[in-house]
Parts: sequence; C-alpha cells; structure tokens
Amino acid sequence: MCKLILASSSERRKDILKMVKLNFDVIPSNIDENYEKKLSPKQIVKKLSQKKAMAVSNKYPNSYVIGADTIVNVKNKILNKPKNKIEAFKMLKFLSNTEHLVLTGVCLINKKDNVIFNFVEITKVYFYKLDEELILRYINTKSPYDKSGSYGIQDYSAGFVKKIEGCYYNVVGFPISKFLNVLRTFPKIESISI
Amino acid sequence: MCKLILASSSERRKDILKMVKLNFDVIPSNIDENYEKKLSPKQIVKKLSQKKAMAVSNKYPNSYVIGADTIVNVKNKILNKPKNKIEAFKMLKFLSNTEHLVLTGVCLINKKDNVIFNFVEITKVYFYKLDEELILRYINTKSPYDKSGSYGIQDYSAGFVKKIEGCYYNVVGFPISKFLNVLRTFPKIESISI
Repeated sequence: MCKLILASSSERRKDILKMVKLNFDVIPSNIDENYEKKLSPKQIVKKLSQKKAMAVSNKYPNSYVIGADTIVNVKNKILNKPKNKIEAFKMLKFLSNTEHLVLTGVCLINKKDNVIFNFVEITKVYFYKLDEELILRYINTKSPYDKSGSYGIQDYSAGFVKKIEGCYYNVVGFPISKFLNVLRTFPKIESISI
Repeated sequence: MCKLILASSSERRKDILKMVKLNFDVIPSNIDENYEKKLSPKQIVKKLSQKKAMAVSNKYPNSYVIGADTIVNVKNKILNKPKNKIEAFKMLKFLSNTEHLVLTGVCLINKKDNVIFNFVEITKVYFYKLDEELILRYINTKSPYDKSGSYGIQDYSAGFVKKIEGCYYNVVGFPISKFLNVLRTFPKIESISI
C-alpha cells in the first residue's frame, strides 16, 4: 500500500481532505508559481498543479502525491492573490454583479509506478452587486490576501455569492468529490479511514 | 435598534450566521413540525419557518426573529430526517445517481412593527452513483440522523455530490446570501458586527 501526500500548505485544502476522512501527510512544494502569460486558464492550473506534485514526488517516489492549483477567471482576466488593499479592491469590484469561473487543476503522481493523472474542475460563481463600503469592510478583515480572486466563499464573503453551478469545494480550493472518484480507481492507495 | 433572534437549535444555522459576523441570540422554537400532507414542498417550508419564527416572536415582540425550515424533495417525495438506519439507507439509495432539490423557507418576523417577510430558496443537487458499502460506511458515522435527506454536504458525504446549482449554504440549512440582502432592507436591525 502507498501513502498519500498533499503537496500544499493550504489550510483549506487540508480541511477538505480531513472532512472526507482521508489519511494523508502534508509536504508543501514551495515551487515558483509564475507561468507563461500565453497559457490558457486550464493550461495554467494543469501546469502548476503538476509542477507542485512533481516537486514533492521527486523526493517521495513511492507515495501518491497530490498537487492542486486554483485560479479565478473573469472576462478573460486571471485573478491571483492580491498583493495589497488596492488590488483586492479592484478584483472585488471586477467580480461584483457578474459571473466568473473558478478553476482548480489537480494532479496525482506516483513516480515509481509512472502514474501521472490530471483533471481540471470548473465552477461558475455568480456575485451580487457589491457596494464599495461592503468591499472595504471585507478587505479590512484581511481575509482576501491569501485567496485567488480576493474572496473566500467559506468566510464573510459567502454573502457575496448569489449562486454557483458546479462543485462548491472547488471554489474553496479542492474539488473533493471528483477527486474521491478518481482515488477509488487506485486501489493501491492507503487513504480511506472511515 | 432591534435585536436579531434565531429561532433554531441547529448548530449548522448558528455557524452560518456567525460566519458572516452577524450578532444574534438563539432561542429554539420547539414547535410541532408536523404538516398537512397535501401541502407542496414550498408551502411546507414556508409554513414551518413561519410557525417557528412566530412561536418565538410571541415571547419577544420587539426583536426580529428568524425561522427556517429545510427539506429535500426528490421525485415527488419529501425526505425529512431519518428515524433509523433503514430509513437513512433507503433515502441515500433514492438520492443516488440522480438530482434532487433542497428547499429552505426563511421567515423574518417583528411583531411590534407588524413585519412578516418570507422567502423560499431552492438549490438543485446532483449525486454520484453511491454503492451500498459506501452508504453503509456513511450511516455508521451517525451523521445522517439529524439531517433532512440523510446527508450533510459539509461532512463526509461531500464526496457524494457531483455538482450543485444555486446556493451552497441553502443545502447546509440556511441561504445566507439571499438573507443578507433581505436584512439590508431592514435598517432598524442591530446585527452586523463586521
């Protein structure tokens, strides 16, 4: 049996895997997350999730390593994590009163067995119109700074979201139900504790 | 300014209201939750949420009281909380490999000002095909027993859900974003702490 490793330091991803009672270790990849500007949103998350998984897989070739990368795509723009208050404000104004896509790339690698499995999950998210005072109040909670698109659907900004189409946990940062279906096709992984 | 009261003992509803930084008291209504069989799903949740809010409003006429009721509707059947393992198993078999609706009725009452505001939020939920062993493992966690439809999208059964259309928190038990939009139209309520 092989161990499962999450190549991410994201508390939200850890919480999602724990929620469904998976057994796993956490080993962050610490890769450089820059990417070529010409890539499509799907290509970006596929490439970065694979890069994360591969970096950790090189050190733990016998384990199954999970890499994941999430971005927000709105009107042909990619929104990453905001660097400051102005960037966060601009992103949230941009998302206000319209819909956007949240894309997460997931990559599962086992180097020893030569396994590389990728998928990209996409969820459509519709925002209410946000007034500027509300945006500023939210930014003052400091919550936007570690989040692609400057919001977290699982915090105060849950109130910004009119509706979603697709997987909710994908918006939080990890498309768990699709992933579990993939995992069941790898019986060698020792992971389900329930 | 008027206080906000949640007329529910549901930990999940409390957590959702806390997540968006509302100030509120909790006073469960303890009403009889039976309803006439001829009512439609929408009428059931509207009626029960109003009954819950009214029971507490009678004792606290100066406050704004929130009542909420959630049911699951699949193929013309209403699924409430399962009474035992067999009922839970039947419900989950019924939800497997198909879609269902989660309906939450919300009622906001202020008796002194003669305010009664109702809405019903509906979210469509698509389940993967669940094998019987998986259903039994989930039932053994005891999680189904306090949940309409025998599952909680925020626990292990998150993995059962292929996708949703609508409000995620409605499926957990309280459609928070629609509610916040309603709340903003009542400036007399002292509730936002952020």
